[in-house]
Amino acid sequence: MKLRFQKDALVNGINIVLKAVPSKTTMSILECILIDASGSEIKLTGNDMELGIETKVAGEILEHGKIALDAKLFSEITRRVSSESSAVVSIESDERFNTTIRCENSVFNIQGRDGEEFAYLPYIERDKYICLSQFTLKEVIQQTIFSISPNDSNKMMSGELFEVNENQLQVVSLDGHRISIRKVRLKDHYDDIKVIVPGKTLGEVSKILSGDNEKEVLIYFSANHILFEFDNTIVVSRLIEGEYFRISQMLSSDYETKISINKKEFLDCIERATILIRENDKKPLIINITDNSMQLKLNSSFGSMNADLLIHKNGKDIMIGFNPKFLIDALRAIDDEEINLYMMNPKSPCFIKDDEENYIYLILPVNFNAASV
Amino acid sequence: MKLRFQKDALVNGINIVLKAVPSKTTMSILECILIDASGSEIKLTGNDMELGIETKVAGEILEHGKIALDAKLFSEITRRVSSESSAVVSIESDERFNTTIRCENSVFNIQGRDGEEFAYLPYIERDKYICLSQFTLKEVIQQTIFSISPNDSNKMMSGELFEVNENQLQVVSLDGHRISIRKVRLKDHYDDIKVIVPGKTLGEVSKILSGDNEKEVLIYFSANHILFEFDNTIVVSRLIEGEYFRISQMLSSDYETKISINKKEFLDCIERATILIRENDKKPLIINITDNSMQLKLNSSFGSMNADLLIHKNGKDIMIGFNPKFLIDALRAIDDEEINLYMMNPKSPCFIKDDEENYIYLILPVNFNAASV
Repeated sequence: MKLRFQKDALVNGINIVLKAVPSKTTMSILECILIDASGSEIKLTGNDMELGIETKVAGEILEHGKIALDAKLFSEITRRVSSESSAVVSIESDERFNTTIRCENSVFNIQGRDGEEFAYLPYIERDKYICLSQFTLKEVIQQTIFSISPNDSNKMMSGELFEVNENQLQVVSLDGHRISIRKVRLKDHYDDIKVIVPGKTLGEVSKILSGDNEKEVLIYFSANHILFEFDNTIVVSRLIEGEYFRISQMLSSDYETKISINKKEFLDCIERATILIRENDKKPLIINITDNSMQLKLNSSFGSMNADLLIHKNGKDIMIGFNPKFLIDALRAIDDEEINLYMMNPKSPCFIKDDEENYIYLILPVNFNAASV
Repeated sequence: MKLRFQKDALVNGINIVLKAVPSKTTMSILECILIDASGSEIKLTGNDMELGIETKVAGEILEHGKIALDAKLFSEITRRVSSESSAVVSIESDERFNTTIRCENSVFNIQGRDGEEFAYLPYIERDKYICLSQFTLKEVIQQTIFSISPNDSNKMMSGELFEVNENQLQVVSLDGHRISIRKVRLKDHYDDIKVIVPGKTLGEVSKILSGDNEKEVLIYFSANHILFEFDNTIVVSRLIEGEYFRISQMLSSDYETKISINKKEFLDCIERATILIRENDKKPLIINITDNSMQLKLNSSFGSMNADLLIHKNGKDIMIGFNPKFLIDALRAIDDEEINLYMMNPKSPCFIKDDEENYIYLILPVNFNAASV
């Protein structure tokens, strides 16, 4: 095999597929990136058997072939082989998979492996699909992924529900303490779809997506897999099996107190209060709403913080406690300047949502000792 | 005590003294920053008993007093209490050392400690001193500090020699494998001085120094201490006791091979070769000098790299091996575009120095198996 690339193009391609290369694995071939130039195009592939990424890289094929190269070494060498982004990098391998990477005055020799040993991406039937902009998909993922459960004790909580109904995509994540919901109107009407996508896959996809509003992503669905196609890249991932939680019964539009508040001020105040909390310290943030003012209070072994914020209130006064992290996560995800909170009582979930319900963040309150406030 | 500050000024002051606050200590009072407003100025102090830093902060004294506040909390609160750099921060403490920090709509309460418990900086007689620009001192430290020994097994190697002779300051560091020497011409003639300054002190001083060429630093020397005075800050540190290594007998101006080489190209090449080395991997970089070319070669279990560089040579051909890290450290410290290397034979130290010997880097070569090259 003998190939020639522009350094930048090669580095970009490697960075994309690197996201599917496992850092630890018992199958050492998976620590490699496959360079496949057996056809008319040059494709790079990374695959950890759950998640696979393939991307096409512009380059010159002087001699067809394929080779698997240690991902870390290959990435480091191409990234640092020259300080010029337009430098020409050539890669050549012989029948024993000895590989030479050349650029300017430097020559690297590393031992590659037979490309045939590499695990190919599964084949996905491309009939069921939806189409949306890269910008929207990236945003939807970033605005929901924080509330998946970080541990695997409940597999379903480590993924997100993707549900398509006519021309609407609804994305849901939850971890037992909170639920995040984003709804997106699609340009076309599609078949019904309801799948659970691993959070890891979505995290990697959101990193690769350019976030361009003009560029599209096609998402294909099969019985066990999801496939994202955009730019020169495809990402294939297994789905999580099982039936997702029924969230409709947890949602309610009743409320006793509705407040409007400036998002940035609210977020800044809560972030400030967390100075007094160390990790694993479960001190609640207590919110006391009276007339048109909100008092925030946090007590910990380090000290206390008090802050007052102006709000606009409808309904009853209320005193309610929250895990400040959950409020922070939701507020950071919201783009609006002014937000609405809906509350029933200090034991019932609080909803942060916009009027059209494009986003809904449900957060369970926490108990606090009213006597200590 | 009752004080008022502009947020920015207070945060800057805290950041300076924070460098002397130990992260772990058995004396919990040392984890505090002392605010001393008992006189006409407001001074902040951090002190780990080896190194002490005191800085004056502009502010309004509404009520005199002093208090010691937990450094981490105090720093976090003032840094994040407002997003406005010009916001007014007020600090108030009562006779029980309860302290209130107020800014905009937020109020923090934390428990302070009696300022009298705090360890004062030692008093230093200010007679023996030198004066140089902040720029020069910062540069001299950064260009030598990398070759102190990181572990304390030899206390003297963890410091740097500061030697003043008439109008010359010579700074030396060494770790048993290499020596770094920087000489600076001073504007005045001073008394002879020869002290060993802890590397930690110099590292912190170089971080605080603005690096301004127009601003000066006064350095005072006493029997056991060194004191740096600049801007509104003084840094006091213990010296390391003992007699420093005699380095003059290790320096030699004899050579068999002298080469001139472009520093950036040389450095880039060596850095590139280290892609093939993991930490603790002691593979030598082998340099083969013939006529007007230098061949660099590195072999490791990951592969090999070869590179060719143009040089200008005087004297004999030579093949010599180095720990690439030592070359990288020295080359990064040097500002010149073109550098000179002087070598005797593959067993003798290599010197990198300029014609005036403003800097001298001595690096011991390493053995390599010539048969495997």
